[in-house]
Amino acid sequence: MLRFDHDYAEGAHPRILQRIIETNDEQHPGYGTDQYCDRARLLIQQACNAPGADVHLLVGGTQTNKIVIASILRPHQGVLSPESGHIAVHETGAIEATGHKVLTLPSKDGKITASQVQQYIDGHNQDASNVHTVQPGMVYLSQPTENGTSYSKAELEALSTVCRNAGLPLFIDGARLGYALAADGNDLTLEEIAKLADVFYIGGTKVGALFGEAVVITNPQFKSGFRYLIKQNGGLLAKGRLLGIQFETLFEDGLYFDISKQAVEFAWQIRHAFEAKGFAMKFDSITNQQFPILPNTVLAKLSQKYSFTFWEKVDENHSVVRFCTSWATKAENVAELLEDINQL
Amino acid sequence: MLRFDHDYAEGAHPRILQRIIETNDEQHPGYGTDQYCDRARLLIQQACNAPGADVHLLVGGTQTNKIVIASILRPHQGVLSPESGHIAVHETGAIEATGHKVLTLPSKDGKITASQVQQYIDGHNQDASNVHTVQPGMVYLSQPTENGTSYSKAELEALSTVCRNAGLPLFIDGARLGYALAADGNDLTLEEIAKLADVFYIGGTKVGALFGEAVVITNPQFKSGFRYLIKQNGGLLAKGRLLGIQFETLFEDGLYFDISKQAVEFAWQIRHAFEAKGFAMKFDSITNQQFPILPNTVLAKLSQKYSFTFWEKVDENHSVVRFCTSWATKAENVAELLEDINQL
Amino acid sequence: MLRFDHDYAEGAHPRILQRIIETNDEQHPGYGTDQYCDRARLLIQQACNAPGADVHLLVGGTQTNKIVIASILRPHQGVLSPESGHIAVHETGAIEATGHKVLTLPSKDGKITASQVQQYIDGHNQDASNVHTVQPGMVYLSQPTENGTSYSKAELEALSTVCRNAGLPLFIDGARLGYALAADGNDLTLEEIAKLADVFYIGGTKVGALFGEAVVITNPQFKSGFRYLIKQNGGLLAKGRLLGIQFETLFEDGLYFDISKQAVEFAWQIRHAFEAKGFAMKFDSITNQQFPILPNTVLAKLSQKYSFTFWEKVDENHSVVRFCTSWATKAENVAELLEDINQL
Amino acid sequence: MLRFDHDYAEGAHPRILQRIIETNDEQHPGYGTDQYCDRARLLIQQACNAPGADVHLLVGGTQTNKIVIASILRPHQGVLSPESGHIAVHETGAIEATGHKVLTLPSKDGKITASQVQQYIDGHNQDASNVHTVQPGMVYLSQPTENGTSYSKAELEALSTVCRNAGLPLFIDGARLGYALAADGNDLTLEEIAKLADVFYIGGTKVGALFGEAVVITNPQFKSGFRYLIKQNGGLLAKGRLLGIQFETLFEDGLYFDISKQAVEFAWQIRHAFEAKGFAMKFDSITNQQFPILPNTVLAKLSQKYSFTFWEKVDENHSVVRFCTSWATKAENVAELLEDINQL
Repeated sequence: MLRFDHDYAEGAHPRILQRIIETNDEQHPGYGTDQYCDRARLLIQQACNAPGADVHLLVGGTQTNKIVIASILRPHQGVLSPESGHIAVHETGAIEATGHKVLTLPSKDGKITASQVQQYIDGHNQDASNVHTVQPGMVYLSQPTENGTSYSKAELEALSTVCRNAGLPLFIDGARLGYALAADGNDLTLEEIAKLADVFYIGGTKVGALFGEAVVITNPQFKSGFRYLIKQNGGLLAKGRLLGIQFETLFEDGLYFDISKQAVEFAWQIRHAFEAKGFAMKFDSITNQQFPILPNTVLAKLSQKYSFTFWEKVDENHSVVRFCTSWATKAENVAELLEDINQL
Repeated sequence: MLRFDHDYAEGAHPRILQRIIETNDEQHPGYGTDQYCDRARLLIQQACNAPGADVHLLVGGTQTNKIVIASILRPHQGVLSPESGHIAVHETGAIEATGHKVLTLPSKDGKITASQVQQYIDGHNQDASNVHTVQPGMVYLSQPTENGTSYSKAELEALSTVCRNAGLPLFIDGARLGYALAADGNDLTLEEIAKLADVFYIGGTKVGALFGEAVVITNPQFKSGFRYLIKQNGGLLAKGRLLGIQFETLFEDGLYFDISKQAVEFAWQIRHAFEAKGFAMKFDSITNQQFPILPNTVLAKLSQKYSFTFWEKVDENHSVVRFCTSWATKAENVAELLEDINQL
Repeated sequence: MLRFDHDYAEGAHPRILQRIIETNDEQHPGYGTDQYCDRARLLIQQACNAPGADVHLLVGGTQTNKIVIASILRPHQGVLSPESGHIAVHETGAIEATGHKVLTLPSKDGKITASQVQQYIDGHNQDASNVHTVQPGMVYLSQPTENGTSYSKAELEALSTVCRNAGLPLFIDGARLGYALAADGNDLTLEEIAKLADVFYIGGTKVGALFGEAVVITNPQFKSGFRYLIKQNGGLLAKGRLLGIQFETLFEDGLYFDISKQAVEFAWQIRHAFEAKGFAMKFDSITNQQFPILPNTVLAKLSQKYSFTFWEKVDENHSVVRFCTSWATKAENVAELLEDINQL
Repeated sequence: MLRFDHDYAEGAHPRILQRIIETNDEQHPGYGTDQYCDRARLLIQQACNAPGADVHLLVGGTQTNKIVIASILRPHQGVLSPESGHIAVHETGAIEATGHKVLTLPSKDGKITASQVQQYIDGHNQDASNVHTVQPGMVYLSQPTENGTSYSKAELEALSTVCRNAGLPLFIDGARLGYALAADGNDLTLEEIAKLADVFYIGGTKVGALFGEAVVITNPQFKSGFRYLIKQNGGLLAKGRLLGIQFETLFEDGLYFDISKQAVEFAWQIRHAFEAKGFAMKFDSITNQQFPILPNTVLAKLSQKYSFTFWEKVDENHSVVRFCTSWATKAENVAELLEDINQL
């Protein structure tokens, strides 16, 4: 069975493993105070052109979302999110477990707009009895989204402007950020994202690392106490060096961007193959996840050899499914899949 | 600088790294549903002679303590703990962050007794206005303790009996469990611990792994929903295989016990060297942490070459410090330290 | 200005005030352990024909919803609620503040159906990766609903059956329960509600009392620890006698039901008056809240003399508003309103 | 049985009841937006000479402590409190339920000192691994304390200075504030308390009201969002007018101070009577609670006619008990008690 169902199926990029082995016997102080973490933080600041930013290396995405949001909100505030946002759907109430409601905005392709946010804020502020409802305290979005789509520079600037005018911090979940940055059609740089967001993170787990997410806090208002919150939430890895080594390797010479690029190219090949056979896509994804709408007969056939993710039923005879590539996807496996699609 | 200040200074046992490399290209489903996790769980059940136990592989200790305790307690209940317990002191309020008070019992060496627990329960139950105070809902202890001491079989049986009679689950933090099991003077087996506790965990981070703690739930009452809680608390590692591979390696042929044994032997050599020079120990530790009371002059001398942990001041001229060995401690480094102590 | 905008505009029924004055100098133990609370609890058990039920007297609705739900759910569970449910909309995230997500079901008139609940449970149970989502742990509904509508006996029986088969406790918010019980067209008795719910409450604040909600726990599984939770949530009134006196007065000779009946009759008179003039109702309310759809001209006219609640805009020229009666509504004020509607 | 066991045994001052009756039929908007609340807030600002302060009227003490503390702290912070503080002992973990640890300081008479607080802050700040422990985020104390003792002006000024220098807000629990202000030997005015604290409250439940605590927020930094937090915690009384009427009555002409004065005088008479018979006091209380150390024979005798509170056992033959007076204590009952003490 060849897996195209998710982007965390393999281990890590060989260069990362190599570095972990080489440094295994070294003795380091714990909890991210070692030299590898220091250098990784520096490299990430440089990649973002944000020398004053705080960078924290965490283990996983849910943990990261939870800690960032709990760090920013006051108890009576909630976080605005697309209804398809990871925090709204797939984190087992991790945000609510910190005491905060996720305030969802409707979305057809995983994205929300500046005017939706503005409208929500206005609605709340103009409601005479608004103390009976949760106050919006920040905005969460994913780049790329859970549907593979991606915010354009204009869209993100508009969102950032609305947020700043309203005093609502903007937090960007970048669990798959590499794949958005590497996509054809993307017009947003890492530096611009760092400028437009107050806090965001650069995902490692799905882009070359064994695990790891690098939080970048560019707004000084949200820096204080963050390490306490990491510890309190069980996110302060004893052998923090492991995170330092991984992000150092990913960012010292652009490896993060290179491996992302390849994954996206494979994803487009798969998309084009399906489209060439007349199958439409559910979302206009430009990144490593593609969502063809396929008839049951095709699904039955492909599933004999490939694993992919069921997304949703369209009608009795059709479903949306997800095909996912990653930094580890092998060219020969993609070639085989393309051939099989072509023969459908 | 040779580090004896903590037991998470190095990476992982080479056999673990080897297995991670060998399996790196394999494609697996995520979140601990792979074959390595399955086998690790089986090996741990076998090591505990607890075929019906649920085994969950988590990343770190604070996370594990938090999840287990939150899973067991109802909102109005607290957890009884020695005042020196890790959850009471060094987890940045992780337990309180889940809504629960840590109810501390005084302790001189990190241990609590069955009669202390019984007395606390009786005091609460006999208090006519007890609804104004937190109800004790479970008991937490560490084996070995944060002071290196260890519960005997008789002590743990007495505690377990008190807990069961009172209907309070007993949870054992085994972040350094290997070092207690391997200690001369220990009379408790892993199987007995599994029988006496309702939930406990076997620490990997400090005993050979890059990271990882294996929770063993022997009381069926506390099994339901545990994986939801892991996810909600950001503890469900996407590439769960990493935990499976590590615990499989540690438990397939007794590696966990072998490397623990060596660490404890080194610790005893250090203890004996200090005692031979007339320095007393603060705690009667039989495990990998030793706590000599040393004059400032000695501390100044040793600190030129070795790192160790300041524990507490005794008087103007003396302090307690901690020397820690681990599975990774090198024989030549110990020999050098012994020689230097000898020459004091 | 005559108020028809809400049902907590006045103080308490005169008989309640009279009893508070008469007993003012008596000395009582605090926190609900006095004789008035004892008798109130007994009278409520009798009114419910539930001699084994636990009855707790709390101060307000949000507090009550929060305590009941926190008492029942485990950390990874959420509460199913109509999207218009009070806990989902108007409690400033009180439920989320206890760590739990409110899982909303769509509703057009404030009610949910047994099949909606069944479908949600099935969807969750059949989802292979359900540990990534919040587990439904109980069902919340209001009788009458926030839209004035009311569950029939058949509807509530069906819901209760689905809940019991699935092991999900059913909690009924009865902040305005009196008005549902007293409504023409209602076919559910208090006794039946006590049988079909696991926990419910009888609202006093909106039905004759200064404040107070009587929680009735009929399912023995949810009795333990409840007083601890009341205290922890700041709901244990020091002078608990005040709650006892109020519910004793309301339930010793049917006062609760009598004053509810009158309020509902006034509400129907208002509804009929609007309908006679050709104005439609937004919801088919049979209780003390009525929701006419009115043109702006009418709203402007009525608002010179009456206060009522804006509910939602229908189009440029029409809005839904709420007219509310209560146990304290005066016949002469209703007569005046009816006359004014008639003259529109 | 004559009650001297607590200070919430009776209802409310007759003038309060009178006003509640007179206004019962008036129609008001809910949730504290009525004219009585407005005037009560104004009168309290005036009594504190703090025209810019925010005043909020809440129902009870635990609720108030919980809301104030949750409003101020960030998630990784705890509240410093005397170990005998109400929040540390008698609120069923209400503070922990909001996610925060209560950091206790030892105390012999219920009071803490400026130097204790300074030392704790220094200890935390100087600890290199302080992110593993809870950060002190504010200071809580009670005036008068749970032991009836009272901070002098010099003591409170010193505490306030330490807190301000360290950036830690000072919160004063004034559940019995009237009795401290009225005590012989007190040298602190309400105005000074308002200046030295960042937030404090004036207790009504134990000083003349049916219920009610008036929170005064003098530090502008802690004003925002407070009403949201009241609502979220179930503390926003629907018929808020009841709180307004009570505090208006207590503060419009000094009633609050007059009734406090009488209660303290009675308490001193009881203290003097015990001391005249040679019985020592456990605490040097100057307020309405007195704590004589009495032999069992005396306790047995007095308990036939009076109720008082067992505090703690001193030895086999002696215990500390609490005698409490209040605004409602009757002169004839005190006379009877004095006579009986005298005859011992």
